[in-house]
Parts: sequence; structure tokens; C-alpha cells
Amino acid sequence: MDLDFIQNLIKPSETKIVLLVIDGLGGLPRETDNLTELETANTPNLDILASKGICGLQQPVKSGITPGSGPGHLSLFGYDPIKYQVGRGVLSALGIDFELKPQDIAARGNFCTLDMNGLVTDRRAGRIPTEKNKELCELLRDIELPDVEIFVETVKEYRLLLILRGEGLSDHIIDTDPQRIGKKPLVPISLSPDAEKTVSLINQFLNKAEEILSDHHPANMILLRGFSKKPDFPSIKDVFGIKGAAIASYPMYRGIAKLLGLQILQTGQTVEDEFNTLIDNWNKFDFFYLHVKRSDSAGEDGDFNRKVATIEEIDVQISKLIDLNPDVIVVTGDHSTPSLLKSHSWHPVPILLWSKFCRTDNVDQFGERACMTGGLGPRFPAVDIMPVALANAMRLKKFGA
Amino acid sequence: MDLDFIQNLIKPSETKIVLLVIDGLGGLPRETDNLTELETANTPNLDILASKGICGLQQPVKSGITPGSGPGHLSLFGYDPIKYQVGRGVLSALGIDFELKPQDIAARGNFCTLDMNGLVTDRRAGRIPTEKNKELCELLRDIELPDVEIFVETVKEYRLLLILRGEGLSDHIIDTDPQRIGKKPLVPISLSPDAEKTVSLINQFLNKAEEILSDHHPANMILLRGFSKKPDFPSIKDVFGIKGAAIASYPMYRGIAKLLGLQILQTGQTVEDEFNTLIDNWNKFDFFYLHVKRSDSAGEDGDFNRKVATIEEIDVQISKLIDLNPDVIVVTGDHSTPSLLKSHSWHPVPILLWSKFCRTDNVDQFGERACMTGGLGPRFPAVDIMPVALANAMRLKKFGA
Repeated sequence: MDLDFIQNLIKPSETKIVLLVIDGLGGLPRETDNLTELETANTPNLDILASKGICGLQQPVKSGITPGSGPGHLSLFGYDPIKYQVGRGVLSALGIDFELKPQDIAARGNFCTLDMNGLVTDRRAGRIPTEKNKELCELLRDIELPDVEIFVETVKEYRLLLILRGEGLSDHIIDTDPQRIGKKPLVPISLSPDAEKTVSLINQFLNKAEEILSDHHPANMILLRGFSKKPDFPSIKDVFGIKGAAIASYPMYRGIAKLLGLQILQTGQTVEDEFNTLIDNWNKFDFFYLHVKRSDSAGEDGDFNRKVATIEEIDVQISKLIDLNPDVIVVTGDHSTPSLLKSHSWHPVPILLWSKFCRTDNVDQFGERACMTGGLGPRFPAVDIMPVALANAMRLKKFGA
Repeated sequence: MDLDFIQNLIKPSETKIVLLVIDGLGGLPRETDNLTELETANTPNLDILASKGICGLQQPVKSGITPGSGPGHLSLFGYDPIKYQVGRGVLSALGIDFELKPQDIAARGNFCTLDMNGLVTDRRAGRIPTEKNKELCELLRDIELPDVEIFVETVKEYRLLLILRGEGLSDHIIDTDPQRIGKKPLVPISLSPDAEKTVSLINQFLNKAEEILSDHHPANMILLRGFSKKPDFPSIKDVFGIKGAAIASYPMYRGIAKLLGLQILQTGQTVEDEFNTLIDNWNKFDFFYLHVKRSDSAGEDGDFNRKVATIEEIDVQISKLIDLNPDVIVVTGDHSTPSLLKSHSWHPVPILLWSKFCRTDNVDQFGERACMTGGLGPRFPAVDIMPVALANAMRLKKFGA
């Protein structure tokens, strides 16, 4: 739905909305009993919400499309992820809480291995440990270039972040990552004349990096991709008229929330910490985004039982949420991460929406197959979640007379 | 979905996809027992696939729109049929295996009846038999025009195909068919200056045709429509990264498949022939389009039982398909053809998709009403079938990070 269209229908209200995102929530059935992680989990509180609410499966992007965390979240916040794209460099910066300035150029980097002929033999440098990454980033920080400030930051294992800060820089630059082994790293190429200066700087940086890293096989070079600037998206406050806060233990999700103008609340690492942060700040905001990461991590690790346990841990906390007496509760994920696939997937994601006025359907269990028959349908577009939540919170005016 | 968007997400794989199109599959219940053709048919193999797969009803174009075979098929292949239109002249050429060159202008023709005042009294010339059509086309082939080669081809009964081949021709010409009786045939009119020359040639052709046919009442004139050139669509190989083959006993469907760059496999006239062709070529391709026409013909004839029998005949062959161990099987139609209506209709079409990772729903029978409650939903857009099939075949990358 067009953000302008919604923006024109916003009306003020005192109501409160909670969007609980269980990362990677959707799953696939395991062979033994043909149940998914969510179907296996004992979730009395979520089941009560499902039975009193309206359920369905939602599609973050489009049918068949597996979303990354960026697009998956933009959809949940009502932003069409095909229109509102965030570059990989910027996402990396968000992921380590790096404070990007509007003119910064961010690139995602990989340490890689080159052979004697300069051909890439491993795009991930044997997955060097994070400690080694930190040592090498320290060395790369010695590189100096004219007129720009350089930041080289460790992300994790073989992954790093490169930032150029200065005037007149452009992100219209093609990746240097050839995306396959047996090729030389690509020379950075400008996509528009205004990027010539930046390309020249990147080139100088890469030449010096190659010198510095030459003795550090297997991490003897870096590959860069996703050159990007911090996008200037309309804020959730401006579009939806809500004062929102984000509770997330992982930096990436705080970063995305910050991009959209949500206020970031300090919280701890456990699910319980996050719910306690919600309680502590209940009177200060009218929209809360609460993000739990561990369900996705468990799915990525193929750990069915740990994903089940995380969901059950969340369910216990749900009772605290209900006690706060919110006007609208939405529980869903940003994508599916079936333990079976050990990765994000294209499968639609279970969603429940509860409010006093939601028009309850017949679903009485929060699970993939139960939700298929719910009132939101089996393919509800994720970008429509915010409008429906706002409607249920009595925050949207009538359209037309 | 935008083809560019999908194209950017394609990744290589060795997996195989089969798209089985049962032409005109969808039906309406007969009065005696309130069952449709598909619900009546005994289809143990399709029912097993339905129970292990994910089902739904798909919409070839839009709600309420009855698709022709062209748009119905373009959707199934992932091409938005409103954006990717194929002219009627070109479809007629495809329908008789006429090898169109890129500069050819094709028009669909009808023999018609004119009265003494030159008014159309029958747009189909009393539905003359095909043999008569052939005699008359032979006569029309004597017409000569400057600088162009002319082809006059019998299609069937009162229908013919006219092709002009030469340099500098345009298809921006309005139909000469007035679409109603009591009117004179329309004079061809150019829609743009570059079509003046072609209009003049068409005019000369029609004048000579009227002379030649004057003694051949009721087929004493022709009406032309759908002037068109062979469109230059992106190929399925380029867009979806798959090496595809088409198995179809009817020329029209081979023609559409060829337009999209599928390789046409020689096959016979029976359903069994078509499945045997699939088996014989199994190792050579990673995408197979197999088309069965007779279900649609039976529907068009209002022959409920023959449509049931055709579906049952297909079901028997399905076991051969399953034995090939494909990664993804999709079974659907290009539109509905209820015997009750004796024509194509707007009703959504049953679809089942099976793969190891499809996330099974609760549907355990392949039929219109069973599929309504399936995981693909009751209105799944047909253009999304290919993306979902590709996702299930692990042929799509993640969108965004």
C-alpha cells in the first residue's frame, strides 16, 4: 500500500500497538511427527491470542521470494521492500551499531584468499576467526587517503565493514567481489561520473590493503560489495502518526528501526530482558517493536528443538504483554527459517493479530497449517499489516465520504 | 511479478521442474450430483500429489476475466499477460505451425457473407467446412502485390491466416471486421504514418479478394483482424535460468512455447505419447511443459463425461511422472472450461504444487472445492506460479541481506 495513501488517513489516538517479531518464525514439518517448530511448541498464551484474534500467513515480499532480514523488516513496518531498498554496506553498518552519517559510503567486505596469480581461491578466507579479523582490521586502519576519513570495522569471522567519510563521495560503484572463485577481484567501476573520485579512493585503498595483507594468507585480500549510503526514508512517526520504540538485542534490528525513526530502548540479551524493557517503557510510547533473534539463529543452525524452546520461552513472556492491556497485538516473523533448510526461506509466515475489534476467525492454534485457514488468508501481504494494526487501534479515518 | 526482479535472483541448480497443463481444467458442478468434472474423475495419483503437496485455485489474469489460451499460458510461464500481449494474427500463425519471420505482418481472417448491398450478413460465412476453406484459400493465393510475398493459409472452417512478408511493413492497422452484422466491412485504417504502405497493400488485397470470392456465396468476402508482428519477448532461459522443453500435440501451444524460447519436442497425439516423450527426454532438460488439449476440447463441446475421461487418462500417466523423481511438479490448467458453459470461463483453476519443501496443507483431493482451502489460497495469481516453482527447486537466491 502506498505510504502517502495511509498518511492521509491517520488520526490521533491514545491506543497502543505491540508488534512482536519472532525472527524466522515460519518452519517446515519434521519427518518424525509431521509437525513444524511452531506446531510442536507448547504455546498456551499464543494459542489463546490466536483463538481470540484473527490469523493467517503473511508474505514478506512476494510469492516464492526468500527475504533477507532487511526487506523482511521493512515490509513488517509497512514499507514496500522492493521500493525501499537498503544497501548491503549500510545493513552491515547497522549490524554493528556503527553510526552512519548521511554522506558516508559503506561497503560490506570479505577477507578472501588469492593464489599466486591473483585469482580468488576462497571468497571467505577459510572463515578466519573473529579474533584474526580484528588483528587484520587494525592493520588496515593504518591506510591513509587524501581528504577522507576511513573506518575499517570487524563484523564477524571473515566479514568486515569499510566506511569512507568525506565530501562529494558517491555510492554508484560496482562490487569488486567476483562472486566466484578462479577469478581476479574486480576493479571498482563507477556507475556514474560523480563516482569517479570515490572509485579512485577505493582503488588506492585496495592497493594498499593488498600490500598490507600479502603476508597474511589465507586472508591476503578483501572483496567489497554493496556500496551504499544511508537511505533517507520517511519516518514511521511521519507516516503512521505513532510514537514508536524498538526493543532488540541484536544491532542489525536496532539499526533498521533507527532508519525508520523508532527510538531505541536499552535492553538485555534474554527474551525476558526484552519483555521487561517493554514493561518499563509502557507509558512512554504508543507503538512497540519487540524483536527476538534466537528463533532464527536456531533455524539457521538446523536446531529444531532450540527453535521450539525459544518459541516456548517467548510464550511464557506473552502473559506479561497481555497484562499490559495493549489495544492491538501482532505476533509474526520477518520470514520463515525452517530448521530443515538451515536458512531463510520463501514460505509465508504465521501471523496473529488481536484487538477487541479484530473479527475473530475459527483458528484456535498458532501454527502454520492452522493459520492457513485464518481470516487474514494464506498469503497476506506483509506491507498491509501496519494498516490493519492501525485500523484496529482506531488510528485510521474513513477514506472518502 | 516483474521479470527483471526474478531474473536478478536466479541461481543455478540441477533440479528439475515439470509443469503439467491440463487445458481448460477448471469446471462447474453438474446438476445431478453437484460435482465438477475434476471432482467426478477418479484420480488416485493426482489426489496423492494433492495430499502431499500444496494446493489452491489460481487466477490466470484477474478476477472475473476469462482468458484466451495465449494470455492463459503466458501467465503460467510467469509473463504478465496484460503486459506481454500476443496479437491474434500471430496466435493464428502459431496455431498452424506457420514459421513467422520477425518482419512478417500476420492477420487473422474470417470468410464472411455479404448481401447485395455489401453489408455483412454472417461473420462466419455459414461456418463453411474446412475443405471449402482450402479451395478458397487456393484461389486467394493468386493475388499478387508489389514488393511483398503473400501467404494465405487455412486455419479451420471459416478461419484463415493472412501473412504479408516484405520490408517496411507495420502492424499498426485497425481491424476490418465490423464485429456485427448489418454493417459494411471496415476499410483498413493506419494507426501511425509508418503503416500507410501496409494499409495500401491490404486494401489492394481485399479488393482483389472481393472480386475473386464474388461467386462463392456464402463465403464471398473476408474480414481481417489482429494485425500483428511476432513479439520479441525475453526467453524463459534468460529470465529463469532454466533449459526448458515443450511437449504439446497442438500447434498453438508449441507456438507459444517457441515464442518463449522453449525447445519443442516431437510427440504423438495421445496423452500417453506425450508422457512417453517426457520420459525419453528426461535427462536433457531441467524444465518440462507438458500440455494436454483434449480436456478443453471436451469442455468446449459441453461433453462432461469426455472431460472426466481425459482427466482420468492423465491421472494414469501421472504415475510415470512420479517415477521420474522430479524435484517440483505443478499441475494446473491455463483457464477453466466448464462443460456447462461450453466455453472458457473466468473461474479460478485448480492447482497443485508438490516438492519436498512445499509445506503441505490439509487438502487431500484434487478438485475445485477442496483446493479452495489450500495453502496457495483461492485466488493465487498465475504469474506467481513460476517463482514459487523455482523457489521449491532451490533456484532462487535470497532477496536483500
